[in-house]
Amino acid sequence: MAGSIGSALMATPRVLAFDVFGTVVDWRSGIARDSSRFLAQISRSDIDSAAFADKWRGRYQPAMAEVRNSVRPFVVLDVLHREMLEGTLFEHGIDARAVDPVVLDDWSRAWHRLDPWPDAVIGLTRLKMRYPIVTLSNGNIALMLEIARRGRLPWDAILGAEVIRAYKPDAQAYLGTAAILDALPAELCLVAAHHSDLAAARRSGLLTAYVDRPMEYGGAAAPDRDQHQEWEWRADSLTDLADQLGCD
Amino acid sequence: MAGSIGSALMATPRVLAFDVFGTVVDWRSGIARDSSRFLAQISRSDIDSAAFADKWRGRYQPAMAEVRNSVRPFVVLDVLHREMLEGTLFEHGIDARAVDPVVLDDWSRAWHRLDPWPDAVIGLTRLKMRYPIVTLSNGNIALMLEIARRGRLPWDAILGAEVIRAYKPDAQAYLGTAAILDALPAELCLVAAHHSDLAAARRSGLLTAYVDRPMEYGGAAAPDRDQHQEWEWRADSLTDLADQLGCD
Repeated sequence: MAGSIGSALMATPRVLAFDVFGTVVDWRSGIARDSSRFLAQISRSDIDSAAFADKWRGRYQPAMAEVRNSVRPFVVLDVLHREMLEGTLFEHGIDARAVDPVVLDDWSRAWHRLDPWPDAVIGLTRLKMRYPIVTLSNGNIALMLEIARRGRLPWDAILGAEVIRAYKPDAQAYLGTAAILDALPAELCLVAAHHSDLAAARRSGLLTAYVDRPMEYGGAAAPDRDQHQEWEWRADSLTDLADQLGCD
Repeated sequence: MAGSIGSALMATPRVLAFDVFGTVVDWRSGIARDSSRFLAQISRSDIDSAAFADKWRGRYQPAMAEVRNSVRPFVVLDVLHREMLEGTLFEHGIDARAVDPVVLDDWSRAWHRLDPWPDAVIGLTRLKMRYPIVTLSNGNIALMLEIARRGRLPWDAILGAEVIRAYKPDAQAYLGTAAILDALPAELCLVAAHHSDLAAARRSGLLTAYVDRPMEYGGAAAPDRDQHQEWEWRADSLTDLADQLGCD
């Protein structure tokens, strides 16, 4: 059990809201697996699929920033993932317009085929016995739904960016989710593997639970490691979090 | 098994969207049960609690019509249920302002404490093995979430009026839900006990499945019985619908 000094004295959350990419599902392995197959289809197996996954994900924050900064109206993450794929291909000298659109569509939907970390389903199932568990992801509803059905993630509700029409770390993503749940911000706990996400949630008054996912970037350091704080809870897995929150 | 002539020839739905009040949960028994308790608390046990439930529900369509007709901006059903309760009390000569606000809040949340019809959980569980199952109710997310957790309804996602910010039978409630699911209207099947709801869904291009709930109004005729049509499916229960849709 990871350290959670004083957690017995903490306010108890009423609802748990989960980041999904990296926290509940392993995006890098899934994107690398599918990209390997598609890179072979376009005769570019010389490109390392894990590095390709990292490059694709690297376009995530800049793509959402355009929406957050009102450079463009809200569009769902499926649309951004497709554009980010085209940009990543371009970076590797591949013109997306020369690729079969059916292949491109299927490739960009690799994000729908991500698998949960090994502890996720049992951890969520235990947490759900005591707390409502909802998504608070930047992923759109259809994307979250497909990941959940594929991996049998037992969400009580799929909330997040599309419902609020704002991307994390905009305060509205956290505050709007609490409002929909008829909860005060302090009654909602964000569970996430990312310090940057937790820091924004805390600025909005939410409780915070950090889940360590050392393999999210294949063992490399997380880009937001300098935003570390003492979170209300710190767990090595969702089953560890269930232990700490007193869920059988 | 109820009649579903030709259903083997029908298009197969890709997603099932469910009306909830009356179709999945028995609102009349639940509202009568809780109202009986609250009427006793305010020393008005002389009022018949089932008739009180019918009067309260009778204010449902007029209340939503104000939003549908843009007389007022969108507000969630929890807010309308509270106002409808105050109106129903007034109709019985009771001034809501004279009632303890804590009692009124709890009473108006009787809609959060409705129980599923006996076939609902097993029927939904079977249907979920094959189809994504989502709510397409006018109830808000917090309300749907509490009903689902209380009754263990295994929804894949809670959609409907609050997500779309439009009340059924507005076309946008059906079309917007299909769009969120990345589905064509014809790939979405509305499952409902109400002909009026199904008729509107069909006008928007959805598939339709009628579930007969003869006790929804305590055995009295449904107010929308004249809107009956031949729906793609007609079932006596959600387990019957699972049989007809080939779900083990």
